[in-house]
Amino acid sequence: MIYVLRLGHRPGRDKRITTHVALVARAFCCDGIFIEGRDESILKSVEKVKKRFGKKGFLVDFTNSPRSLLNELRHRGFTLVHLTMYGISIDNIIEKLKGKNILVIVGSEKVERYYYEVVDYNVSVTNQPHSEVAALAIFLDRLFSGRELYSKFEDAEFLVIPSERGKKVVRIGKEKEGKGTN
Amino acid sequence: MIYVLRLGHRPGRDKRITTHVALVARAFCCDGIFIEGRDESILKSVEKVKKRFGKKGFLVDFTNSPRSLLNELRHRGFTLVHLTMYGISIDNIIEKLKGKNILVIVGSEKVERYYYEVVDYNVSVTNQPHSEVAALAIFLDRLFSGRELYSKFEDAEFLVIPSERGKKVVRIGKEKEGKGTN
Repeated sequence: MIYVLRLGHRPGRDKRITTHVALVARAFCCDGIFIEGRDESILKSVEKVKKRFGKKGFLVDFTNSPRSLLNELRHRGFTLVHLTMYGISIDNIIEKLKGKNILVIVGSEKVERYYYEVVDYNVSVTNQPHSEVAALAIFLDRLFSGRELYSKFEDAEFLVIPSERGKKVVRIGKEKEGKGTN
Repeated sequence: MIYVLRLGHRPGRDKRITTHVALVARAFCCDGIFIEGRDESILKSVEKVKKRFGKKGFLVDFTNSPRSLLNELRHRGFTLVHLTMYGISIDNIIEKLKGKNILVIVGSEKVERYYYEVVDYNVSVTNQPHSEVAALAIFLDRLFSGRELYSKFEDAEFLVIPSERGKKVVRIGKEKEGKGTN
């Protein structure tokens, strides 16, 4: 099982970035996300996507004590991986991580020293500053060897058919041609 | 050369997502980004990163006529690639794109039908809704075959040394151990 922990979410300021982190976690086949803090708007956005595109089992949960969560998951055998531009290169560690239960930790602007010390691995996706959304996507893409791009979720209401132009969306037993606009 | 075009930027609402798109473009070795609209706060954030971590030649520019920009780059021989969850799978097209001059187009919530029709390729990074930040990162990672993760920018003031714990940052001729907090 793969879970994501999003540290230091600030409602308002981080709303959209955390929503993107959650949607990447879902689309790239994680089992759920824990968010430090509470923000119903994220839950609402993800629920809407789950309803239309499936994966209803994907967990979105909030926590005020991420340290307890870390301890609990560690005791349940999870490997703790913190994504940070200061860590060791993803390519040096990814093979060791395949097939394990993992908690992937992503921060917002500041991550306390505690997390650097308590995790099993601090892992970098480039040593440049960029985005926790991008870092998570690359990490999961390497972890699942690219297969996650083809995941189909059984309980989806809509299925997108890859198309050269415009939008092609299939609804259970019914085909609908999009107009190229939302 | 690889440029990114970010369509439909709404100052305020999109500020942080567009900043992440721009920082991914820089860190993953693009030559610059064009943003539809105008938002000085993005310029400021990217300039700060360029000053500290290098790649001063990375262009951040604003445009009110993305269609003219598309036409101009097309006439200059660029291949136009639009990232969208409705497009053909990235794995089916990426080999054809290697070594070309490319304009990578990413939208915000709504992208006009025009763009689906005018580009050379509509390309999907999963057919699930997630994030333009993640889609851009995966696209560039596949395009550059993962080598972009190791880019060093000559004009950097600081260099991050991959480290198992905490933060290790080198300044020209001077080594500084971080404390594991920002």
